[in-house]
Amino acid sequence: MVDKLADVQGYGDSREVGIDKVGVRGVALSLKIKDRVNRFQHVSASVDCFVDLPHEFRGAHMSRFIEVLNVYRGKVFDAGVVRKVLSDLRERLCADCSHIEVVFPYFVEKAAPVSGKKSVMKYDCAFFGDFCEDFSFMIEVKVPVATLCPCSKEICDAGAHNQRGIVTVRVRCGGFVWIEDIIKVVEGSCSSEVFSLLKRADEKAVCEKMYAQPMFVEDVVREVVLKLRKVKGVLGFRVECENFESIHAHNAYAMVDEL
Amino acid sequence: MVDKLADVQGYGDSREVGIDKVGVRGVALSLKIKDRVNRFQHVSASVDCFVDLPHEFRGAHMSRFIEVLNVYRGKVFDAGVVRKVLSDLRERLCADCSHIEVVFPYFVEKAAPVSGKKSVMKYDCAFFGDFCEDFSFMIEVKVPVATLCPCSKEICDAGAHNQRGIVTVRVRCGGFVWIEDIIKVVEGSCSSEVFSLLKRADEKAVCEKMYAQPMFVEDVVREVVLKLRKVKGVLGFRVECENFESIHAHNAYAMVDEL
Amino acid sequence: MVDKLADVQGYGDSREVGIDKVGVRGVALSLKIKDRVNRFQHVSASVDCFVDLPHEFRGAHMSRFIEVLNVYRGKVFDAGVVRKVLSDLRERLCADCSHIEVVFPYFVEKAAPVSGKKSVMKYDCAFFGDFCEDFSFMIEVKVPVATLCPCSKEICDAGAHNQRGIVTVRVRCGGFVWIEDIIKVVEGSCSSEVFSLLKRADEKAVCEKMYAQPMFVEDVVREVVLKLRKVKGVLGFRVECENFESIHAHNAYAMVDEL
Amino acid sequence: MVDKLADVQGYGDSREVGIDKVGVRGVALSLKIKDRVNRFQHVSASVDCFVDLPHEFRGAHMSRFIEVLNVYRGKVFDAGVVRKVLSDLRERLCADCSHIEVVFPYFVEKAAPVSGKKSVMKYDCAFFGDFCEDFSFMIEVKVPVATLCPCSKEICDAGAHNQRGIVTVRVRCGGFVWIEDIIKVVEGSCSSEVFSLLKRADEKAVCEKMYAQPMFVEDVVREVVLKLRKVKGVLGFRVECENFESIHAHNAYAMVDEL
Repeated sequence: MVDKLADVQGYGDSREVGIDKVGVRGVALSLKIKDRVNRFQHVSASVDCFVDLPHEFRGAHMSRFIEVLNVYRGKVFDAGVVRKVLSDLRERLCADCSHIEVVFPYFVEKAAPVSGKKSVMKYDCAFFGDFCEDFSFMIEVKVPVATLCPCSKEICDAGAHNQRGIVTVRVRCGGFVWIEDIIKVVEGSCSSEVFSLLKRADEKAVCEKMYAQPMFVEDVVREVVLKLRKVKGVLGFRVECENFESIHAHNAYAMVDEL
Repeated sequence: MVDKLADVQGYGDSREVGIDKVGVRGVALSLKIKDRVNRFQHVSASVDCFVDLPHEFRGAHMSRFIEVLNVYRGKVFDAGVVRKVLSDLRERLCADCSHIEVVFPYFVEKAAPVSGKKSVMKYDCAFFGDFCEDFSFMIEVKVPVATLCPCSKEICDAGAHNQRGIVTVRVRCGGFVWIEDIIKVVEGSCSSEVFSLLKRADEKAVCEKMYAQPMFVEDVVREVVLKLRKVKGVLGFRVECENFESIHAHNAYAMVDEL
Repeated sequence: MVDKLADVQGYGDSREVGIDKVGVRGVALSLKIKDRVNRFQHVSASVDCFVDLPHEFRGAHMSRFIEVLNVYRGKVFDAGVVRKVLSDLRERLCADCSHIEVVFPYFVEKAAPVSGKKSVMKYDCAFFGDFCEDFSFMIEVKVPVATLCPCSKEICDAGAHNQRGIVTVRVRCGGFVWIEDIIKVVEGSCSSEVFSLLKRADEKAVCEKMYAQPMFVEDVVREVVLKLRKVKGVLGFRVECENFESIHAHNAYAMVDEL
Repeated sequence: MVDKLADVQGYGDSREVGIDKVGVRGVALSLKIKDRVNRFQHVSASVDCFVDLPHEFRGAHMSRFIEVLNVYRGKVFDAGVVRKVLSDLRERLCADCSHIEVVFPYFVEKAAPVSGKKSVMKYDCAFFGDFCEDFSFMIEVKVPVATLCPCSKEICDAGAHNQRGIVTVRVRCGGFVWIEDIIKVVEGSCSSEVFSLLKRADEKAVCEKMYAQPMFVEDVVREVVLKLRKVKGVLGFRVECENFESIHAHNAYAMVDEL
């Protein structure tokens, strides 16, 4: 049996093709994420992680990725922990570079604008870490927004088409950045932020605000860009807005990349 | 080798558990679908098909599903062909019942309301067939629509929230029913139909029409129901409307089931 | 303004079409779910809920669904709580029937078979509740499994195709049923259960077990059926197995419905 | 009305934020694709296309994207046509750069290895075009494959875990490249290619071949890399293999990027 449990992955390889990324995708992991109001919240994450594999080795030991992740199961994840995970992966996998993507839903409580009634919104978020010579860390947040078309408002006798959109912001961090701060930037840069719970007086306020602040996808990304440039800890960013146009079956899209 | 290629599926089974459905899912198939304007159109379909398996047999011969489907590859699919496929499946699989679901995208050319400019819309469609003692055939069509909220229009000083929705209609057919006729019913039962190509004058017309015809999800399904009751060949139906609310991150939904 | 904030949904409707289900889909909600080992676990759920709407009313008050759900935010969800939510929905929406679907990921820690190394698996779960005259409650659990083809094993000189499958079990509950018990039934009814973390000796054990226990999709559902019939609190069930066949690009499927 | 139909998108913008990409996503389009055996095949595509927008303009005229695409509706799409579309987009949108992604399913008929029985396989494909100063064109093909784990084979007394995987190859083209040639490279670089239709003798052949050719994800991408380097017209490539591990609920992944 000793012979049988050979380390096949450890065999040499003569094909002289180095692998840029090898690893596991879709690993389920319970984590805690730092929450501005409640210190932290429990999240169910899906994790991809990879290392490079030099050309002279046959394969990576995939179970070691899981072993490394398991150490941090149930723990608070932030840039510092991501760096530790990546450092552990480099060590356990004997690699020069390691990469991780951690995708999770994040909940924030919001108050309706008139009634003040509270409800929660879910934002799909991700952490991206890379550790080769240097360590880099990015946060991505997807924020649902409402947009009202400026052209439509100007040309119509009454009404204007509006729709739900998704603003996807990825920021490269040089210091701690709150998910809540990214959300705030986006929700202040659209025709109206969206809510789970709106009573009639709230709906009136939201719809009238939308009509008063018509914005194209181009406007949304520009406003987000201007504000992100001033957020402390943000070294770079990519901002996308995709509108599920109410008058079309396809979407409108704009993107600025300053990563 | 003769022994080796044993018919394991054909072995007996003593567990006394009959299987309601056994078969294959996600089989890719090129088909033709009858098109009111162009006689037929080529589509790429995904097919699920199943039979029942009496308790005394170990397994179904899965390759026979593919062999039966292959006979009809590239052919025109309609209720009559679906019936033949189901009949073949019952025979080849020695089954009492057979079932099929054929999902495909269907394209229809539309003219913009003012400029008359033509473009195509895609509608996700499906055929459902069941053949036990009797044969039954259903068509499903998903129609993107625009809806404008009646409540929002009434309470706001200006503007009203509107959004893209999807109306899903499934009809049980007692005769030939055009996909185009189902689409027409739905597109005449919402605040406005949607288009791929709208120039400025079209956009003005669509948005003003939307504002003039505010409809809840409840209104949309009711209007569709009233019209479907009069369509020749329709024995029953289920109508759903799901709105991607512009002011929320969740959806509004209504459904009437008269299948 | 008093006039403006009219209750449009409360208007009468003369079309005489009752709505079977009206409500909201995709509402994000944080919950706790009863956990056999840790008392409960935090989950991020997506909730759909509906009521019926008699033909004489124009629309349902959608914000009330969110208000009702909000009361139970962060609370433990089980059959009793689902019943309370449904009861509240009937009352707040003045409806005869209410329905809910709560979808969430659920984590269970497992030990590898030889090394005993612990890791977690995620199971996609759902609760379904209906409250018309009677209350009914169902739990659905999706369990990833490994299956090895009995036919392939018998006809091949060496090796046999095997693959990941998903077993979906929906049980109608007449008493408390642990998610863990449903998982246990399924993981004991396939060629091998699957794990997140397997060291080499574990991999050997899992693969040899798989080879020793070849099972078709039909075998898996039959074994699950036989065992579910004996689980206390289970009034009925539907069992599906779908195999992502390693030698095909389509899937094999079997289903028994005793709901 | 002349005043009303103002060109809002054409207004100036003083925010000094240029937009990298603005355009439309998810536009449905019927096309023809060159087919090695049948000259061409009809496909239903989903198209994204974008241009850059200099900082001094408020918005892009979205309807022009659709107008440009409409010219090529129903036509054969290849690198030359993609270049023309991109050139038209630059002209109509007064842009320096244009980009397109065209995603479509492509069907190829295959013969089973022993019985010779024919069936079709679907491969999800995409064309990517960029036209700034230079024009670049890439083809992506997703090829389902079967892989058998070399480690598992070596350590087990009998059997070895195997599974379906997806190999995603993106090639940068410097001349005409057949989709069929990319598929051939991948299907010759895995434990076994997969088929829609396999009779018992075919299944035996496929499974025994798989067992005789165990390959990790790393092996698959390396073999594909070695072969792609020799394919005429290929200037660069990125190769990914993702295995839906039969013994895990997560996936194994490897990637080499020589784009």
